[in-house]
Amino acid sequence: MNTETTNTGPTMVSAEQAEVEQTLIDRVVASFERCEDARLKELMQSLTRHLHAFIREVRLTEEEWNAAIGFLTAAGHITDDKRQEFVLLSDVLGASMQTIAVNNQAYKGATEATVFGPFFTEDAPEIPHGGDIAGGATGQPCWVEGTVTDTDGNPVPNARIEVWEADDDGFYDVQYTDGRIAGRAHLYTDENGRYAFWGLTPTPYPIPHDGPVGQMLEKVGRSPVRAAHLHFMVTAENLRTLVTHIFVTGDPQLEIGDSVFGVKDSLIKDFDQQPAGTPTPDGRDLNGQDWAKARFDIVLAPAGI
Amino acid sequence: MNTETTNTGPTMVSAEQAEVEQTLIDRVVASFERCEDARLKELMQSLTRHLHAFIREVRLTEEEWNAAIGFLTAAGHITDDKRQEFVLLSDVLGASMQTIAVNNQAYKGATEATVFGPFFTEDAPEIPHGGDIAGGATGQPCWVEGTVTDTDGNPVPNARIEVWEADDDGFYDVQYTDGRIAGRAHLYTDENGRYAFWGLTPTPYPIPHDGPVGQMLEKVGRSPVRAAHLHFMVTAENLRTLVTHIFVTGDPQLEIGDSVFGVKDSLIKDFDQQPAGTPTPDGRDLNGQDWAKARFDIVLAPAGI
Ligand SMILES: [Fe+2]
Ligand SMILES: [Fe+2]
Repeated sequence: MNTETTNTGPTMVSAEQAEVEQTLIDRVVASFERCEDARLKELMQSLTRHLHAFIREVRLTEEEWNAAIGFLTAAGHITDDKRQEFVLLSDVLGASMQTIAVNNQAYKGATEATVFGPFFTEDAPEIPHGGDIAGGATGQPCWVEGTVTDTDGNPVPNARIEVWEADDDGFYDVQYTDGRIAGRAHLYTDENGRYAFWGLTPTPYPIPHDGPVGQMLEKVGRSPVRAAHLHFMVTAENLRTLVTHIFVTGDPQLEIGDSVFGVKDSLIKDFDQQPAGTPTPDGRDLNGQDWAKARFDIVLAPAGI
Repeated sequence: MNTETTNTGPTMVSAEQAEVEQTLIDRVVASFERCEDARLKELMQSLTRHLHAFIREVRLTEEEWNAAIGFLTAAGHITDDKRQEFVLLSDVLGASMQTIAVNNQAYKGATEATVFGPFFTEDAPEIPHGGDIAGGATGQPCWVEGTVTDTDGNPVPNARIEVWEADDDGFYDVQYTDGRIAGRAHLYTDENGRYAFWGLTPTPYPIPHDGPVGQMLEKVGRSPVRAAHLHFMVTAENLRTLVTHIFVTGDPQLEIGDSVFGVKDSLIKDFDQQPAGTPTPDGRDLNGQDWAKARFDIVLAPAGI
């Protein structure tokens, strides 16, 4: 064996071998040189470098390569208009969240973004200030209120707020086959940038885990469960659209780990439990049911940041 | 904006932003910590690091992320028992060839390996020394001869040599629907490690390019065509199995670029053109057809290298 060695990660290989591997990378990178779309060229060349760096670093075996091809094939075959296994894969590898991080850069005190998820729909009903998004979805009633401001502290009137969440069985309306619209709505901030609505106290639910991604999570000892959350999408003129969630202080899944890495500390909110009979902010009669209340003040970055 | 910046590749981001991105990577890596299969843990953690490094380096947009999900979905949907788009993808990114490089390290003068390809079958007929593999496949007859030795120069008797190739229309037998077995065979080296057979002078053919991988190649201005080649797989006791091809000196596709990066200089061989009427090595009468001859001396590394 050659005594000169090169470190390609944890494994040492001969200089001759390292040159074979590097020459191959150079050739693949060069093959994209004539691409006329400069951005596509950049993407393919970077993808090539990182993919090859991975294979070299782990010294991928042919059996492992076969397993990877089999995994992608199974993911492709379970994917249809309702099930998106590649999105799940991106989610559980944190790639979705990293893409969001890259495209929603930290800016002054702007509220942090998190994953969009697969359960948003365009057709959620409009509710007035203080209206109820439940639409028949079951769960503990929860009063959510707050403001929308810009990063200079100015209130943002007429911001559109979309909210959506699972019921306390852990299912979104679109996961039922009866066509219901429940646990989702949109509303607008008032002239002082304030909003309020009745939702449901969020509960944890698993991502679909009966496919290849679920099997992978099981093999590596990871939970498929998402920390309990309530989705928000906030749009307002000249401000950056915010897609985010709020999470629930004390949710045990926050310790176990959110399966898609959506949690940011700034997004964990107190959902204050209110015993049955506690008067509600808008005088609503909850028929003796307990309820919760949460506050979420939203700060939007300028558009184009 | 923050004036402290960190270089994550071509783009500078604020230190605050870089920390958000790095923290996410740390969390995803940590999520695999409890995996009991140490090798699987290593693979997933390395994959995570390289995938995130790619996203950060190119500052992947949400639109590009969507396009990637769409590409993988289309690749999954075109894949069936006969068509493997993920293997094609791995091939055209050089990932298949890199995996082979990693698993067949350069060793003294051992013959270099290259991609296996999708067209090998187990049931190829046995032919005697000097037999014909064509089985009805069309093309210019080509006499191929050589020796099999170990890296100390000792001849290897009784090595099993599988050979397979496309016809001069660019198709393997298995790509026809009539069940033919043609352009493939196996034979054994004699007591002096020598072998010889009649094959067909190889011609270039495209990989299947009517799917997402073909579309990608077109967008980046790459040819789907493979340099002309003849496949070999050589097995012998106590020696490393060799999967390789030989390529044809002067094939214009060698300049354009082999679509799967299978070419190594050491594997390009002269296929000497013989005018019609030139006597053949074994006295075979080719009915006035021209023919070619090539020599390929094969050196096998020890097993376990
Ligand atoms: Fe969700
Ligand atoms: Fe081939």
